[in-house]
Amino acid sequence: MEILINKDVLISALQIINAVTDKSSVKPILSNFLLTTRDEKDGIDGKSCVEFSATDYELSIIGKFPADVKKHGSICISARKVFDICKEFQGNEIHIQSTEQLWIHITSGASQLKLPSVDVGLYPQTTIEELPEKVGTTAEDLKKFIHMTLFAAQTNESRRNLMGVCLSILDGKTTRWMATDGHRLAQVISQVNEISSESTSEVIIPRKALQEVTRAVDLLKDTLELSFNDRTLQFVSPLLTLKTRLIEGKFPNCDPIIPKDNDLQILVDRERLINSLKIVSLISSEKLKPVKLSILPNILKLESEKAEYGEVNDEIAIEYSGELFQIGFNAKYLLDVLNVLSGPQIRLEFKNSMSPCLIRDVSDETFLSVIMPLRIEW
Amino acid sequence: MEILINKDVLISALQIINAVTDKSSVKPILSNFLLTTRDEKDGIDGKSCVEFSATDYELSIIGKFPADVKKHGSICISARKVFDICKEFQGNEIHIQSTEQLWIHITSGASQLKLPSVDVGLYPQTTIEELPEKVGTTAEDLKKFIHMTLFAAQTNESRRNLMGVCLSILDGKTTRWMATDGHRLAQVISQVNEISSESTSEVIIPRKALQEVTRAVDLLKDTLELSFNDRTLQFVSPLLTLKTRLIEGKFPNCDPIIPKDNDLQILVDRERLINSLKIVSLISSEKLKPVKLSILPNILKLESEKAEYGEVNDEIAIEYSGELFQIGFNAKYLLDVLNVLSGPQIRLEFKNSMSPCLIRDVSDETFLSVIMPLRIEW
Repeated sequence: MEILINKDVLISALQIINAVTDKSSVKPILSNFLLTTRDEKDGIDGKSCVEFSATDYELSIIGKFPADVKKHGSICISARKVFDICKEFQGNEIHIQSTEQLWIHITSGASQLKLPSVDVGLYPQTTIEELPEKVGTTAEDLKKFIHMTLFAAQTNESRRNLMGVCLSILDGKTTRWMATDGHRLAQVISQVNEISSESTSEVIIPRKALQEVTRAVDLLKDTLELSFNDRTLQFVSPLLTLKTRLIEGKFPNCDPIIPKDNDLQILVDRERLINSLKIVSLISSEKLKPVKLSILPNILKLESEKAEYGEVNDEIAIEYSGELFQIGFNAKYLLDVLNVLSGPQIRLEFKNSMSPCLIRDVSDETFLSVIMPLRIEW
Repeated sequence: MEILINKDVLISALQIINAVTDKSSVKPILSNFLLTTRDEKDGIDGKSCVEFSATDYELSIIGKFPADVKKHGSICISARKVFDICKEFQGNEIHIQSTEQLWIHITSGASQLKLPSVDVGLYPQTTIEELPEKVGTTAEDLKKFIHMTLFAAQTNESRRNLMGVCLSILDGKTTRWMATDGHRLAQVISQVNEISSESTSEVIIPRKALQEVTRAVDLLKDTLELSFNDRTLQFVSPLLTLKTRLIEGKFPNCDPIIPKDNDLQILVDRERLINSLKIVSLISSEKLKPVKLSILPNILKLESEKAEYGEVNDEIAIEYSGELFQIGFNAKYLLDVLNVLSGPQIRLEFKNSMSPCLIRDVSDETFLSVIMPLRIEW
């Protein structure tokens, strides 16, 4: 194999690939990646190209990148070493050539690198499959769906079925993205470009795949296709494909938890509320930063616990003329929601001090979040 | 005590102070700082002000900052909590008031913070002393002296007398700053504004004090005075003083180590050499990144070890027409020196493959560094 590749192309390809190559030395083979040349009919815009591919068995990434292919073939080498060293090369063009003794010569300008390679047959191959269920969307929308839900997913392993985002096909045009950890929930219901599904499907996509697809979103072209069955999901765009195993198990039915008749509603400036929650929660060294919200005539008052280490309170102007209402929250859960929204105003919808609170972005009807209140005694 | 203080002033004061307040909870009293009002004759520009003071017993920081003093007094409170919470306050002015029950009320706009305070008498007091030896310099020069030597000081505790920078007064106008860890050495010999010393003095200033004085250098006015005896050193400027214990022990005499007759000299582009050293050293996973330098006609060649994990070499154009010369180094030591220099060209001065190498910045005669070679066998 022999290719000439632009340095910036090589570096950005390896930045994507390095997300799945193994940095621990538990499975040394997984610290490598596959580089394979592709001919004109399998290339980019009718030209031959190179394909980068790496996997950690859970998540696989395959991408095509432009290169001047001198001699077809494929190699398997250390992703970290090629990335670290080629990043420092001064030239714009990098020449990569394999030898018969499995040594790879990489040169650029006056710099020469010789790396040992691994027999390509030893590396786990990833193939893009034809899967029955399909959802077509834009890269920008996909990034938004992930950003606005993933924060609510569970991070510890106690309930594996909550450790990702549940994608449901509601009808021929609408998808629902939902995550919850039992204390809070986030949901986006949004129309997408295209759905081709044989049944009302529901899959749970693991956190890592969602994080990496977000990171790679600039390399995904404008529109992409999610294709899946009950075990595997692929994010497919013309040049880049991410393929992930799905989380097994059933996602709980959260519809009964989403309140329907929370009549006590207030509008609050989002950034001011973020600021106020920080002020009031920073005093506490507890992980659950308890905060009390009091809704007074035209004032939303936030208070910390009254403790020996100190206490804080803050007030935000709102429009409200009803009765006094008080409710407690974990400030971190409120901050997590507010930080993924982008509109200037949010709506808080309450029923009573024991019932879950609904949070909406006034400028974005597709989103809602539910947070369970905290029992407070001060 | 009651004051009004500008938020930005309070935050920048606490950023300095927090360098010495204790984040561990081993000595809880040291997580606090002292805030004391000063009257007109002890204030700033004839106006009353506030003094912030904190210590970790090794290093103490005392700074004066403008504030509107309503009622004189002093308080001792948590530096971290005041910093974290006041940073989020929306208002420009912060009102701080003590109560008789040792509670401190801090308010700004609609935000109110109540913190417990500690009896001022329990906190270790720092006083600025009159010390016999004095060196006057500019803040900019001091920063440079520290930056260009501290990197060579020892970081582990095996030889405590090498864990700082040695300041020597050479004559009535000249100071020498020197650090070494036994493998490399860095020295700056520079004239200063003023020296008043009774004897040829030499002190070893610990790393932390040097790091913090560098961090605080913008708050030190243009010129400042270092005053010291054999136990204590103070960096004194009109508004800010850092006081540190000195390292006990004698600094070794390094003069015999500095080569006088290294006749084989080459000029090299500094940034190109940094880049080349990175390329060649990144292949190795060892901590001591061994690299071989070969001086060929008009070429400086850098090579890594030839190992099973791969090998790299790189070439830099130089002007040289003498004999072939080869020498090994720890690439990290070379990089550390090159990174503190600022000139475009450096001079490497060699004698033979076993003797220390001298490194100079062509545009700065005050500096030199010595690096011991590494025995290489490839």
